[in-house]
Amino acid sequence: MPDKTYLITPGPTPVPPEVQAAMERPLIHHRSPDFKVLFASLLEGLGRAFATSSEVLVLPGSGTSAMESAVSNIVSPGDPVVVASAGNFGERWAKIARAFGADVRLVEQPWGERLEAGPIAAAAPAAKAVYVTHSETSTGVVHDVQAIAEALRPTGVALVVDAVSSLGGVELQTDAWGIDVVVAGSQKALMTPPGVGLAAVSPRAMELARSASSPRFSLDWQTVSAAQAKGATAFTPPVTVIAGLDEALRLLDREGYETAFARNRELARAAREGVKALGLELFSPDDDSSSMVTAVRMPEGIDGQAVYGVLRDRHGVVLAGGQGPLRGKVIRIGHMGYMNRFDMITALAALEMALAEFGYRPPTPGAGVARATELFSEGRAVGV
Amino acid sequence: MPDKTYLITPGPTPVPPEVQAAMERPLIHHRSPDFKVLFASLLEGLGRAFATSSEVLVLPGSGTSAMESAVSNIVSPGDPVVVASAGNFGERWAKIARAFGADVRLVEQPWGERLEAGPIAAAAPAAKAVYVTHSETSTGVVHDVQAIAEALRPTGVALVVDAVSSLGGVELQTDAWGIDVVVAGSQKALMTPPGVGLAAVSPRAMELARSASSPRFSLDWQTVSAAQAKGATAFTPPVTVIAGLDEALRLLDREGYETAFARNRELARAAREGVKALGLELFSPDDDSSSMVTAVRMPEGIDGQAVYGVLRDRHGVVLAGGQGPLRGKVIRIGHMGYMNRFDMITALAALEMALAEFGYRPPTPGAGVARATELFSEGRAVGV
Repeated sequence: MPDKTYLITPGPTPVPPEVQAAMERPLIHHRSPDFKVLFASLLEGLGRAFATSSEVLVLPGSGTSAMESAVSNIVSPGDPVVVASAGNFGERWAKIARAFGADVRLVEQPWGERLEAGPIAAAAPAAKAVYVTHSETSTGVVHDVQAIAEALRPTGVALVVDAVSSLGGVELQTDAWGIDVVVAGSQKALMTPPGVGLAAVSPRAMELARSASSPRFSLDWQTVSAAQAKGATAFTPPVTVIAGLDEALRLLDREGYETAFARNRELARAAREGVKALGLELFSPDDDSSSMVTAVRMPEGIDGQAVYGVLRDRHGVVLAGGQGPLRGKVIRIGHMGYMNRFDMITALAALEMALAEFGYRPPTPGAGVARATELFSEGRAVGV
Repeated sequence: MPDKTYLITPGPTPVPPEVQAAMERPLIHHRSPDFKVLFASLLEGLGRAFATSSEVLVLPGSGTSAMESAVSNIVSPGDPVVVASAGNFGERWAKIARAFGADVRLVEQPWGERLEAGPIAAAAPAAKAVYVTHSETSTGVVHDVQAIAEALRPTGVALVVDAVSSLGGVELQTDAWGIDVVVAGSQKALMTPPGVGLAAVSPRAMELARSASSPRFSLDWQTVSAAQAKGATAFTPPVTVIAGLDEALRLLDREGYETAFARNRELARAAREGVKALGLELFSPDDDSSSMVTAVRMPEGIDGQAVYGVLRDRHGVVLAGGQGPLRGKVIRIGHMGYMNRFDMITALAALEMALAEFGYRPPTPGAGVARATELFSEGRAVGV
């Protein structure tokens, strides 16, 4: 029997059958009237996902491409920028900014901590823009970008938010919170395979793009925007991914974003409680604020990468390993996207089975799945 | 979010992605050379699945159609037949035989018991044929058809076995055990959607068909056999189901039938232990002999059909309710087909959550999933 594969990662995430079916419809040409109808529907759905009336640009590539566009379209070589970082994806902002010759001023906090708004706002005034991460998937922390946006407002400096692994999974109000640029990708909470980057760009940010001299072509916001104004894409887009994403946004609209956010919180809570019942320590914060990814410390002497391999190859359960300094130290369980209670129970069961191969035994056998099942049973009883 | 659906039933069972992909290939015509190639491959695979060198007839319909064919092609009105029954599918043999005017001599045992070979052999001599069930899915019992075949051998009476829910999931040696007719369907341990019935027919049984006067047309063995001798089907077959079944048999050949049987035993054992840890009683036998379905008694005062409904509608977990006198009294968990450890854990978690809505609490919260996870962890540790 072929083993079943469970993608319980912080992206790519499982694809709902409705999205799969939409991608399996006959391929249409990207210069056809049918595509115009599809693309218009997608852009409307994206406006709701980003909670913005600004334009959302559909960019070739992935979330990283969208991040790159938010540097190359704002920064000219030598421009000072502030990058706030407390993890791998904060560092990615710095790498991209440096690649385009920006003068990066890092406002760092240790991996696993929440970014504080004060130091970011203090460093901002001299900068062209401030780059922050919403869901830092390397640590499981969801940063308070609303507070950061508020602190930045008096400075008038543009705020750019990486919401690649949060958009659609945890609240993010682009317009209401006054964020200039929000970037995302199709393959995480938006439940679609990888293939497009997304950038919600405010008029003020688009204005910055007019004077930014960094070289760029396919990710040029003005080029993409001009095409989208005519209901088209500038270059050949991944048509099937766009069809899938349009369907995924329809599913999210139908479910309601608040319901999706609440579901992620419930799954994350069960994962945290299950992990603790297994006698393991959490690396990510133990509260409802971090609902996209749960990072679990590996017991002393057990290599997280080896555990990751056993989970994937023997159990078909794909969790995520650690990144950067956390490589080998943590295993990460994703909660975003097309994920449910039984996925969490599967992740906890598989984690216990995999750790058993390295000699780790929980205080009580099966305690992780037992605790999660207990919580879900209670949830049902009180009508959650 | 659309809920995920888990088919953890004694059929139809989940379809592996490879089988799904095979069914999604462009439809071919059933009188084309391509179909001949496909059909020849299918018949070869079926020979291995049934462990027979006799012909396996591919019949329009389902397992019940194949059962009907094993009555209408053997029995003439008024013929005495023996039906051995200890459950719903034993009774189905009697209903079909009576529909064709047979004189049915029932050898009954209470639902949930194993058929005994002695009384069957004692009743056989006057009969045209003996009809028995292999896996009685209404009770979870797998009957010892090898012993029944041995006991019958001296009588020379034909033995017909319903292996609809067992073929491919538990050992059945058509030729080696000397069974005249074995009937099955595509949708259970063979991991394919419903759509065809299957009947392995020995030369002796085919000889009986020449003199049986029951009216029949599309299920006529000689008609179907004559077409298959030319590599074709007599009438339009469900081409996509045949393409899927061919792929499923390839997967089973690759895995090995012994491995599939062992997997079912492991899953059934974990289900039984999990059920007992939940403080529930088993209806099906508590040993390795019954590895296809586990029937769980509902606690006093809780309606199994209501539990079944909550499982399906609120949790997306489709188990099976009780049949006949067991309706409302049991819930059945399937182990056959494309099923793995996490499916068992999901079934146990869902059962606990559903029962919680009816006020039932296990002795220890989460004890069912905990026990199953513990067993699977041990299995891994000793290299199972």
